[in-house]
Amino acid sequence: MKLFKPRFFRRVLKAGLPPGTLVHIGERKLENVRITYIDYDQDNFQEKQVSDIEECFKFKNTSTVTWINIDGLHEVSLIERLGAEYELHPLILEDILSTVQRPKFEEYEKNIFIVLKMLSYDDENQMILSEQVSLVLGSNFVLSFQETTGDVFDPIRERIRNSKGRIRKAGADYLMYALLDAVVDSYFSILEKLGEKIELLEKQLLSQPSDETLEQIHSLKREMIYLRRCIWPLRELISGLQRCEASLISDSTGLYLRDTYDHTIQVIDTVESFRDMTSGMIDLYLSSLSNKMNVVMKVLTIIATIFIPLTFIAGIYGMNFKYMPELEWGWGYPLVLLVMLIIVVCMLTYFRRKKWI
Amino acid sequence: MKLFKPRFFRRVLKAGLPPGTLVHIGERKLENVRITYIDYDQDNFQEKQVSDIEECFKFKNTSTVTWINIDGLHEVSLIERLGAEYELHPLILEDILSTVQRPKFEEYEKNIFIVLKMLSYDDENQMILSEQVSLVLGSNFVLSFQETTGDVFDPIRERIRNSKGRIRKAGADYLMYALLDAVVDSYFSILEKLGEKIELLEKQLLSQPSDETLEQIHSLKREMIYLRRCIWPLRELISGLQRCEASLISDSTGLYLRDTYDHTIQVIDTVESFRDMTSGMIDLYLSSLSNKMNVVMKVLTIIATIFIPLTFIAGIYGMNFKYMPELEWGWGYPLVLLVMLIIVVCMLTYFRRKKWI
Amino acid sequence: MKLFKPRFFRRVLKAGLPPGTLVHIGERKLENVRITYIDYDQDNFQEKQVSDIEECFKFKNTSTVTWINIDGLHEVSLIERLGAEYELHPLILEDILSTVQRPKFEEYEKNIFIVLKMLSYDDENQMILSEQVSLVLGSNFVLSFQETTGDVFDPIRERIRNSKGRIRKAGADYLMYALLDAVVDSYFSILEKLGEKIELLEKQLLSQPSDETLEQIHSLKREMIYLRRCIWPLRELISGLQRCEASLISDSTGLYLRDTYDHTIQVIDTVESFRDMTSGMIDLYLSSLSNKMNVVMKVLTIIATIFIPLTFIAGIYGMNFKYMPELEWGWGYPLVLLVMLIIVVCMLTYFRRKKWI
Amino acid sequence: MKLFKPRFFRRVLKAGLPPGTLVHIGERKLENVRITYIDYDQDNFQEKQVSDIEECFKFKNTSTVTWINIDGLHEVSLIERLGAEYELHPLILEDILSTVQRPKFEEYEKNIFIVLKMLSYDDENQMILSEQVSLVLGSNFVLSFQETTGDVFDPIRERIRNSKGRIRKAGADYLMYALLDAVVDSYFSILEKLGEKIELLEKQLLSQPSDETLEQIHSLKREMIYLRRCIWPLRELISGLQRCEASLISDSTGLYLRDTYDHTIQVIDTVESFRDMTSGMIDLYLSSLSNKMNVVMKVLTIIATIFIPLTFIAGIYGMNFKYMPELEWGWGYPLVLLVMLIIVVCMLTYFRRKKWI
Amino acid sequence: MKLFKPRFFRRVLKAGLPPGTLVHIGERKLENVRITYIDYDQDNFQEKQVSDIEECFKFKNTSTVTWINIDGLHEVSLIERLGAEYELHPLILEDILSTVQRPKFEEYEKNIFIVLKMLSYDDENQMILSEQVSLVLGSNFVLSFQETTGDVFDPIRERIRNSKGRIRKAGADYLMYALLDAVVDSYFSILEKLGEKIELLEKQLLSQPSDETLEQIHSLKREMIYLRRCIWPLRELISGLQRCEASLISDSTGLYLRDTYDHTIQVIDTVESFRDMTSGMIDLYLSSLSNKMNVVMKVLTIIATIFIPLTFIAGIYGMNFKYMPELEWGWGYPLVLLVMLIIVVCMLTYFRRKKWI
Repeated sequence: MKLFKPRFFRRVLKAGLPPGTLVHIGERKLENVRITYIDYDQDNFQEKQVSDIEECFKFKNTSTVTWINIDGLHEVSLIERLGAEYELHPLILEDILSTVQRPKFEEYEKNIFIVLKMLSYDDENQMILSEQVSLVLGSNFVLSFQETTGDVFDPIRERIRNSKGRIRKAGADYLMYALLDAVVDSYFSILEKLGEKIELLEKQLLSQPSDETLEQIHSLKREMIYLRRCIWPLRELISGLQRCEASLISDSTGLYLRDTYDHTIQVIDTVESFRDMTSGMIDLYLSSLSNKMNVVMKVLTIIATIFIPLTFIAGIYGMNFKYMPELEWGWGYPLVLLVMLIIVVCMLTYFRRKKWI
Repeated sequence: MKLFKPRFFRRVLKAGLPPGTLVHIGERKLENVRITYIDYDQDNFQEKQVSDIEECFKFKNTSTVTWINIDGLHEVSLIERLGAEYELHPLILEDILSTVQRPKFEEYEKNIFIVLKMLSYDDENQMILSEQVSLVLGSNFVLSFQETTGDVFDPIRERIRNSKGRIRKAGADYLMYALLDAVVDSYFSILEKLGEKIELLEKQLLSQPSDETLEQIHSLKREMIYLRRCIWPLRELISGLQRCEASLISDSTGLYLRDTYDHTIQVIDTVESFRDMTSGMIDLYLSSLSNKMNVVMKVLTIIATIFIPLTFIAGIYGMNFKYMPELEWGWGYPLVLLVMLIIVVCMLTYFRRKKWI
Repeated sequence: MKLFKPRFFRRVLKAGLPPGTLVHIGERKLENVRITYIDYDQDNFQEKQVSDIEECFKFKNTSTVTWINIDGLHEVSLIERLGAEYELHPLILEDILSTVQRPKFEEYEKNIFIVLKMLSYDDENQMILSEQVSLVLGSNFVLSFQETTGDVFDPIRERIRNSKGRIRKAGADYLMYALLDAVVDSYFSILEKLGEKIELLEKQLLSQPSDETLEQIHSLKREMIYLRRCIWPLRELISGLQRCEASLISDSTGLYLRDTYDHTIQVIDTVESFRDMTSGMIDLYLSSLSNKMNVVMKVLTIIATIFIPLTFIAGIYGMNFKYMPELEWGWGYPLVLLVMLIIVVCMLTYFRRKKWI
Repeated sequence: MKLFKPRFFRRVLKAGLPPGTLVHIGERKLENVRITYIDYDQDNFQEKQVSDIEECFKFKNTSTVTWINIDGLHEVSLIERLGAEYELHPLILEDILSTVQRPKFEEYEKNIFIVLKMLSYDDENQMILSEQVSLVLGSNFVLSFQETTGDVFDPIRERIRNSKGRIRKAGADYLMYALLDAVVDSYFSILEKLGEKIELLEKQLLSQPSDETLEQIHSLKREMIYLRRCIWPLRELISGLQRCEASLISDSTGLYLRDTYDHTIQVIDTVESFRDMTSGMIDLYLSSLSNKMNVVMKVLTIIATIFIPLTFIAGIYGMNFKYMPELEWGWGYPLVLLVMLIIVVCMLTYFRRKKWI
Repeated sequence: MKLFKPRFFRRVLKAGLPPGTLVHIGERKLENVRITYIDYDQDNFQEKQVSDIEECFKFKNTSTVTWINIDGLHEVSLIERLGAEYELHPLILEDILSTVQRPKFEEYEKNIFIVLKMLSYDDENQMILSEQVSLVLGSNFVLSFQETTGDVFDPIRERIRNSKGRIRKAGADYLMYALLDAVVDSYFSILEKLGEKIELLEKQLLSQPSDETLEQIHSLKREMIYLRRCIWPLRELISGLQRCEASLISDSTGLYLRDTYDHTIQVIDTVESFRDMTSGMIDLYLSSLSNKMNVVMKVLTIIATIFIPLTFIAGIYGMNFKYMPELEWGWGYPLVLLVMLIIVVCMLTYFRRKKWI
């Protein structure tokens, strides 16, 4: 069983620094930072991986939608330059770099800032892995920041390249919605994994529960506690987005956000159902323990209850008294055996009636 | 015991597709799609099963109320053509086709869209089966979409045919209310089934609880978890409908919706009561296990406590010491038997006082 | 132990009928419907039991307050005629006839409609019995509908007859308040009964808990679940009445309603306290089971631990080896007995130290 | 263990009487009613115990603040005359006399009415005792009603006499605040008592838990349930007072009420913490029971497991077969003893490894 | 295990004193009061430890920001003089001196007043220690009051000295934010400690649970109860600050407060997750107890079930009947031994099938 350690905070490192200080908090998961941009409107499309962040700045004042994606957060100066160019508030930059954020939505004067958790399931360790994704929406750009490469955004890139759906026709707000929606959609596969695990554990519980089963239920519960922490804030996040008065989000995108909100509710509902199921499984486990004990005790009781009286009778006739008339009888021995047999039969009848055998 | 698998999400299949993409998510439950329409006003009435959806379009601009019902969702193009004709938002069409929706109500510019679960109880597998029903309300039409044939709408069709009640006099909003109400009313029969099962389990628990009883309580709990997921959102759905400002719903229909809202609350209340009862049953079960164990232990203790000392006495006089004066006494044997009898009587008295026998 | 069956819904019978259809849902508890009216103002008073509902209609347009009370709901046509005369909405009539309503308050254009549960405690079956009471308030009349005769309204009738309190001076709204208040007041006697039962069960638990005690706690819990279902909605009902903007309820009556609201809160509080107490009792019961088991096990362990070693020693000297020098000793037998005695003393000392005896 | 009986309702006695009927509900705790008044402003001060309530009426129309305190509620006519003089609403008088009120705040046209519970801890019976205190605030008077003499108001009287603090400078509203604050402050000493009891029980649980410990935890839980019932409504009461729009309460007193509100929250917080602690203690107790059982079972198992095989071996050589060669051997007896010794050593080693001894 | 005593209230001492009376409630933790001030604006900076509070008053009417910090609260007169100079409301002074406050935020006409708990973890006693910190914000000053020296404010002092970050450019409101933020940030290290302890306990539970493990879980739970009491009110406190309409807090500081609010939510979330984990651990512990019992019982049952029948057989042939033909047979003894062996093999096979060995 894995212990939960590495998944909570390490904010501690930063205690005492002035707010707005840019320090990367979290594991360095990549060798090099990877910068890509996609710039498009209905008619034009450019996509490139660049090594210098400055290359992306040329789109700043164009009317096209620019999506700059950065994988790897350890190069603080790069983030800083990007922030300076796009006039991001220092608190945004700080939050991007600190990978222990709670999912949240914040409205700034010129930007909307979103922090999310992108989750994946590590089958080997039976553990949910999480990566922090930050999105910044401006009037004509979306900046996305991830801890490592590999994400759920590829289908969106594909849609932009192929001009599938309405994405090329819509603005930056629709792009941000699409990214958000991709992350929420990916949660369903985590739920599917957990659902399978619950199903498996339930089968085990009903056939042959063991110590290990309980440990697995316990570990499952902890994964669920973690999942809740990642998912619950989303509800508030998206409804905040919907209510936000910034002109950055158009009405038509609002309709799509409502859809994402529904999915989030569905995810939360499912997690809550899973929690209910898991606690039911612990009841099942504990009562299976009691049942086992009952079986063991019954065996002991049946054996002891049958043989202890018989042994006593044998003990009687093993006494060395001079004058024990029964010992002299010719039919004494078979008679005693008969009596014992009768006792056994009575006992067995009694147990059968009590439904113990 | 059935495992819960097939009833949660399979959204996963769709992850990555652009929103609004029309894909049927769910089992194909019918060979062929079945399209029927009913068109009526106070004086006129037409009903027909058609093979081509185009046949229904002729009523689009009439002042009569048109109810188009579609059983089977696998023919995506059909839904698409219908959507195009009635100018439905792509997200409505997407939700109709995805049968893993949470019940919800959505207001669009020209339509009201409702997703519901129609439930039935599979007696054989002791399981709640669910089918998704989508309703679209327009100014003079209601579109209903189901996964398979067989529904709770037949009495409504009958009422329209026979012009019973106020249905022929009222508009499309009243029709939608009637459909909604029929679905909610059908939940009461599910509750009745579950109520009967609880009653049965309770009887079992009090007479002869077994392993299986617990498994059944567990499975019952899971059905209840599922039921809650289907029913809770209804509360919000209907109160949303009541509050909605669209001119699509008239004031007089509002009064009827309030009635349906009451029924929903009643269903939710009952489910919550059932949950309370079920968790009380688990307490009963666990304590019955403990009680059984107590009984077993008492039998063992009584037998052992009576016979072990007696066997010891017999063992004493089974020793082979040269000089054991008692062995020589003429009354030794009967005396020992008497002593044993006295011990037995004392023990039994003690146990009776402790109320063990 | 009584099972809970007959107290939930039988709405099922009605599924599929158009809303507003008048069908009596519930048991027929009376042979004949009983109609009485009381008509009064500050100076006049008339009271009569009539056989024809038409007799009551003469007061419809007078300025006096008219209270028409109907016991027995199975004569649907009678209710229908009354409804027609007093212009009640079809949904009101439907709800009056369906005795499985949740307590609720509804405001119609010209009426206020209240559904309540009148509770009584069946000492013999230790069960709460409920009867549905519906009240309709109009500008100068109150209609009350009950399932059977016998109610908590007699003191109010007495007050009207004797012109006690302010009832004769006040309007129909005050009469309705008085009826409502009488029902809420009657709940306190149910609580008293349950309180006594809790007290009794607690005494039993502390003196001699048995299987039956748990069953009674379980049944008590179920009564409480039922009671909650009847009482919780009252909170909302009365605060709805207080907030309602209809001119039907005067300000001075509003003050009295606030008083009734307080009583309702007190009833709810008490039920919640009872629930807390009951769940504490289950803990007590389970730990008393464990304690009993401990006692049984200790007896077994003490007996077995003392006699098994002694029996072994006796067994040793019961062996038939040719060369066992101890057997030949003159003091062998008494010595062995002495050794056994010492062992017993040691064991007893050990057990006393462990506080087992 | 005390049972909870006398602390809930006896409203029942009054069911059926018209609202506003003045009946004293509750125990008569005093022989004679005790009436005192204090009349003061910044410069003047009068205090007197009077036998006739009329004596107090002379201050009614002065500008000084008058505090009339009445201990003992059984003289209904006295309360009635007071009510008539000060024009109190009949419902106020009814509530004052009924000592089973839930703490509440009510705003009337000319008065503010508060019902509170004054609590004290009965060390002997380990029980919380409660007395109902009613306060009526008018423009220049405060009326206070108690069930018996002895209260927490003496320090306030002292402050008025000595003109300590701002009390003599402030109006009647500040006096009412001071009384309210004194009651809330007195709750902290109850909490202290309960805290000590929890501490004591926890020590017992960790050293030597017994049946009685659980009973005490159970009784503690019940005291807490009672305490909650008395304290929770205070939150609402005080925040109601703060929000109330009556000109009776000045802004500066509002600041002080905020302080009292904080204290109330602190009391509620502490009670909730105590509840959490208590439920943790039940877990501790139950697991200590299981631990004890484990110890008992281990002793039994060790003794039985060691001696049963040995007894069997002795039994073998106690058989009377003609041809048992071992019996003839010279070393047979010592050899058997050696074998037995080896078995014992093996067993003990096994148990030590399992950490049972 | 430490008991919880000294951490709750001692308000009791003060009951009966008029509100606004200045009494130091709490332990005296310091020999002498320590007064320091820091006065700064963008260009100037002064810092000094003074012995007389009057020295600080010279900055009162300057435009620079003044931060006066007082460690030690037992010199009531000092606090009083400071309060008089800065025109603090008597209730503020009272709350500063009473170290049993719940964290809260209060808005006065000219000041904002905040009470907080500064927490540290005592590794030796495995206990959370808390110190009360009060902050008063005025237009150009911040007053901070602590119970003892040693705090988390040193990094802020450093930032002011070195003019790091925006602190020297911003006003008093930013300083107060910085102090608040430092306290909230310090909670993360407490969480880290608790997280480590949970991890440790979980390891113990899975390898070798003991009595002590449960006691530690219990003590951990209590620390968590305490932590919650300190942290939950912060949520309300900070959101109150954000909403407060006083002109004392500038918009730009509002953004930073939002950041602190997020951190608070994160702390609360983590505490809730810890609570969930801890209660899961108790389940684990209890089931490990049951498992242990099962193992013990199985050993006993196996031994008893094998040897009791064998002993009985030996007992049979130890009887002294005259006519027992088997005893005379030459193969009698080996035959009996063989039968016994067969019985043992059967038993072992049975147990292996039942998976007991």
